[in-house]
Amino acid sequence: MQLGLVGLGKMGFNMRERIRRAGHEVVGYDRNPEVTDASSLADLVDKLAAPRVVWVMVPSGDITRNTIAELGGLLAPGDLVIDGGNSRYTDDKVNAEALADKGIGYLDAGVSGGVWGLDNGYGLMVGGAAEHVELAMPIFDALRPEGPREEGFAHAGTVGAGHFAKMIHNGIEYGLMQAYAEGFELLEASKLVENVPATIKAWQRGTVVRSWLLDLLVRALDSDPELDDLRGHVEDSGEGRWTVEEAINLAVPAPVISAALFARFASRQDDSPAMRAVAALRNQFGGHAVTAAGPSSGSGSTQG
Amino acid sequence: MQLGLVGLGKMGFNMRERIRRAGHEVVGYDRNPEVTDASSLADLVDKLAAPRVVWVMVPSGDITRNTIAELGGLLAPGDLVIDGGNSRYTDDKVNAEALADKGIGYLDAGVSGGVWGLDNGYGLMVGGAAEHVELAMPIFDALRPEGPREEGFAHAGTVGAGHFAKMIHNGIEYGLMQAYAEGFELLEASKLVENVPATIKAWQRGTVVRSWLLDLLVRALDSDPELDDLRGHVEDSGEGRWTVEEAINLAVPAPVISAALFARFASRQDDSPAMRAVAALRNQFGGHAVTAAGPSSGSGSTQG
Amino acid sequence: MQLGLVGLGKMGFNMRERIRRAGHEVVGYDRNPEVTDASSLADLVDKLAAPRVVWVMVPSGDITRNTIAELGGLLAPGDLVIDGGNSRYTDDKVNAEALADKGIGYLDAGVSGGVWGLDNGYGLMVGGAAEHVELAMPIFDALRPEGPREEGFAHAGTVGAGHFAKMIHNGIEYGLMQAYAEGFELLEASKLVENVPATIKAWQRGTVVRSWLLDLLVRALDSDPELDDLRGHVEDSGEGRWTVEEAINLAVPAPVISAALFARFASRQDDSPAMRAVAALRNQFGGHAVTAAGPSSGSGSTQG
Amino acid sequence: MQLGLVGLGKMGFNMRERIRRAGHEVVGYDRNPEVTDASSLADLVDKLAAPRVVWVMVPSGDITRNTIAELGGLLAPGDLVIDGGNSRYTDDKVNAEALADKGIGYLDAGVSGGVWGLDNGYGLMVGGAAEHVELAMPIFDALRPEGPREEGFAHAGTVGAGHFAKMIHNGIEYGLMQAYAEGFELLEASKLVENVPATIKAWQRGTVVRSWLLDLLVRALDSDPELDDLRGHVEDSGEGRWTVEEAINLAVPAPVISAALFARFASRQDDSPAMRAVAALRNQFGGHAVTAAGPSSGSGSTQG
Repeated sequence: MQLGLVGLGKMGFNMRERIRRAGHEVVGYDRNPEVTDASSLADLVDKLAAPRVVWVMVPSGDITRNTIAELGGLLAPGDLVIDGGNSRYTDDKVNAEALADKGIGYLDAGVSGGVWGLDNGYGLMVGGAAEHVELAMPIFDALRPEGPREEGFAHAGTVGAGHFAKMIHNGIEYGLMQAYAEGFELLEASKLVENVPATIKAWQRGTVVRSWLLDLLVRALDSDPELDDLRGHVEDSGEGRWTVEEAINLAVPAPVISAALFARFASRQDDSPAMRAVAALRNQFGGHAVTAAGPSSGSGSTQG
Repeated sequence: MQLGLVGLGKMGFNMRERIRRAGHEVVGYDRNPEVTDASSLADLVDKLAAPRVVWVMVPSGDITRNTIAELGGLLAPGDLVIDGGNSRYTDDKVNAEALADKGIGYLDAGVSGGVWGLDNGYGLMVGGAAEHVELAMPIFDALRPEGPREEGFAHAGTVGAGHFAKMIHNGIEYGLMQAYAEGFELLEASKLVENVPATIKAWQRGTVVRSWLLDLLVRALDSDPELDDLRGHVEDSGEGRWTVEEAINLAVPAPVISAALFARFASRQDDSPAMRAVAALRNQFGGHAVTAAGPSSGSGSTQG
Repeated sequence: MQLGLVGLGKMGFNMRERIRRAGHEVVGYDRNPEVTDASSLADLVDKLAAPRVVWVMVPSGDITRNTIAELGGLLAPGDLVIDGGNSRYTDDKVNAEALADKGIGYLDAGVSGGVWGLDNGYGLMVGGAAEHVELAMPIFDALRPEGPREEGFAHAGTVGAGHFAKMIHNGIEYGLMQAYAEGFELLEASKLVENVPATIKAWQRGTVVRSWLLDLLVRALDSDPELDDLRGHVEDSGEGRWTVEEAINLAVPAPVISAALFARFASRQDDSPAMRAVAALRNQFGGHAVTAAGPSSGSGSTQG
Repeated sequence: MQLGLVGLGKMGFNMRERIRRAGHEVVGYDRNPEVTDASSLADLVDKLAAPRVVWVMVPSGDITRNTIAELGGLLAPGDLVIDGGNSRYTDDKVNAEALADKGIGYLDAGVSGGVWGLDNGYGLMVGGAAEHVELAMPIFDALRPEGPREEGFAHAGTVGAGHFAKMIHNGIEYGLMQAYAEGFELLEASKLVENVPATIKAWQRGTVVRSWLLDLLVRALDSDPELDDLRGHVEDSGEGRWTVEEAINLAVPAPVISAALFARFASRQDDSPAMRAVAALRNQFGGHAVTAAGPSSGSGSTQG
């Protein structure tokens, strides 16, 4: 089938290639003239035959919202828009309703797999109406990994369910990464395990902790055994925050996912104001300010 | 080669089978007459030709310590004992030194894989001297999964390093499980995702969170889609506690692994004394005790 | 001076009394005819001379928003509205701007102290313009505790700053309560400390942990030494959630406040779906499902 | 009465002064010749009349253990040793039994109050036999704050109970400090609260969070309003670690106290190995390493 694909960045570029490999026709649009197939969104729409399916794969937030709004003015009743970016699920209902007023369908699709998706396929979680899912299924089948459809694709629910599922997926991802990271630091900190990379490498087959993330950690350690080419400053990209906010909203305890999120926040601080406050308190009751008053050798400090 | 194997429980029973499938001779001993190959530890030792290799696979703690001590009295210089159970790594040096006094070698082996190891193989992390590792390598090769040796077996360091690595492995496992569990609860709590098992099943291929534990979660949801055949009371078996204690000992922050451990503790409490204290405090400043004093409709409560 | 006070619940009722004791005239309004001084909001406004100051002390959310909107239709330019409830700080700018359009001033006041405020006074954090603060200062002075003004009253900043400060105050409160609660449970769990209430009582003077909350805990233990008249199910009232959301918004690590919040969430669950998922995973790899396959006495389990 | 006091550091120096002010005779010993009253431990013992009471107030660990052992060789049946330092409670039984063999009594005393104890008095938690407590009560009464004895002194239980209670006291203290610290950072991070020190100062009277630690925070902010004379690197001194280890031992969830402890660990790391591992994982799946392969303007990244 034919697909319009807006956004040819790290994700969209590879997705276009994978969909083409599956035998479909993809008209891609990107502001970058080196990669685009169309000169504008309008041109992209012109190049597609009705009923059109247009996949939006641009940065979440205003860029996605504006792109979808613009498509709403260009497409016709019966067409379908798919937001495959990392939009917050609360945007989906708004988008879907605005497009529905014009007879245009809407699906939200969570897409996982990173740069590896070109070869491995992308895990897909989709929200929206069954007839829209059916219309786009050839594209989903092209993008998802080999194997049974249900192991790489889910129609998770109505509009928003795809991005909600992707949000939780990423929240889990935060927790998994932090768990491996704490384990790595503990192995490094101990003198007992002499070959940390080899030990972690040996977890790849047979163990309970084997996973794709573990394979990536092994890959990273292969090229940088102490991971000292990197600084431990870690960004976060929205879904982790949204997951914890959703936990608060739903009154679900999320100690691990929130701890992983806060560890990232802390990693970006040169100096922690909170810990300055703790240091100040210790100074106050431990009496460093008044040290001169009590000259002594033995200490017998009782401060925590 | 020939192996003595002490303990034919869930782990040892399957391990004997896997090693035999690889063409080795295994003499197993268990108190259970239905599964044992020898009538006693002494009988097991008698049935082996020197230099003997005896793998101990019994519950950690006193049972393991006593078994190893007893073997120390039965074996001869040049023999080798391997502790493959979940012993705390601090036991290993004690065991190794006691055996070394008699000329007997010692290896500690962390073994991961659960009941699936029979078919999948077991991930192995080993601590001890290189010559002892070499002596037992045919057995390690029989137990470990197919594929490159280094992806399922590590000689992690000197005596204790195997159990240390296994302890950290299990600590990570606690964090991973809790991350998936929080995600599951969040999906369940929201109305938006209509088919939670199908959504999680779709994470098995292509996504960043794919893992063996995820496969097991999918398997559990296949037979019990709401997981309501189970109570959320979760035991812990030592390594999680030891990992957090080691984090304290090494001054390594372990917020995720400790949160996962504490979630298990909390899951086993019918009522939390701590939360009774919080409730009592709220009662005190919120004035439930003096409610009669201020009859009112509007509340304007300022209590947290 | 003269004050209109809307809401005579647990907080407002006592506040009216405290302000009257300080020699001011208070016209209170509550839907409850047994405590009200006016028959309606309009009647309350009629009973006050311009420039009027009306303090709103009703439950946060729609009730507060609606009450302030209604006052906007009844008051005149030069009048002043103070929201003393636990409104989210983001409401304040909206309220202030709507009232400013009519020439009416607005202050937000965080009020702490619970039912003890009648006698002890209330800690006050106020946001808004200096001239409005000045206008209401006699009321603030009546409400705040004895002693220096700056130890019981702060003009924290512009509109919203009062409720923001109160939100953080309550977030801290969550952390403090949980810290004491964990300590209480640890003392209870150990056999070593024979008299837990007496031990905690002895912390009231001289120790680093002495506080008003500790005094309340001692008071609770005086009447219920094991705290077993209570269930450990603890509600939360908004500010704790908002504080963690604000931490996420500001990228500030808040491990303690969030842990305290999640402990409350968990305390209200009869059974945790997350922990059912952990139990299910342990079942899967620990092989309970296949127990029949490996009859044994020794176990050698390697499962976490 | 007469007291021997070993260790005249920050704590012991002030304690000698406070006990003397209460009219007792104190013979102090310290290695520092400027403050000591005796030339050696033996000299100190010589200067006391039987039955002697000797209070040990030196750094916990080997120094305390050795001091008590040495006293065991110098004292006589009927004498009493009090360990008032921050020893781990598990040391107490060992010390008590060794002294009991010689007919010497033993008490363990947790002492809280820091450098402020000279004027405010010290909160005391004592473990041991009733007759020994009775013997030393005049000293306890001299040290504890003014007011009812039970609000500043507890006989918590048998030997070890005093140090156990002090350990938990300090664990709570960690949680309290971290709660205030997170609140401080949140106030600082927001633009809304213009005067953070004034806002915190206003919490000292009337609010739910008022406490002695809050008073100390106000004091610190008085002299350093942004707390930027300090680095946010915070040491820990044993009791926090022991409290979390005890929580693990007793299977008591301690999310807040452990979070406070881990925040201190993290505060001392220039760069976090764990966060380097998280960064490495993000690099791996986000494809920074392969950026060259997909030139693009729009990104549409789906990485967490």
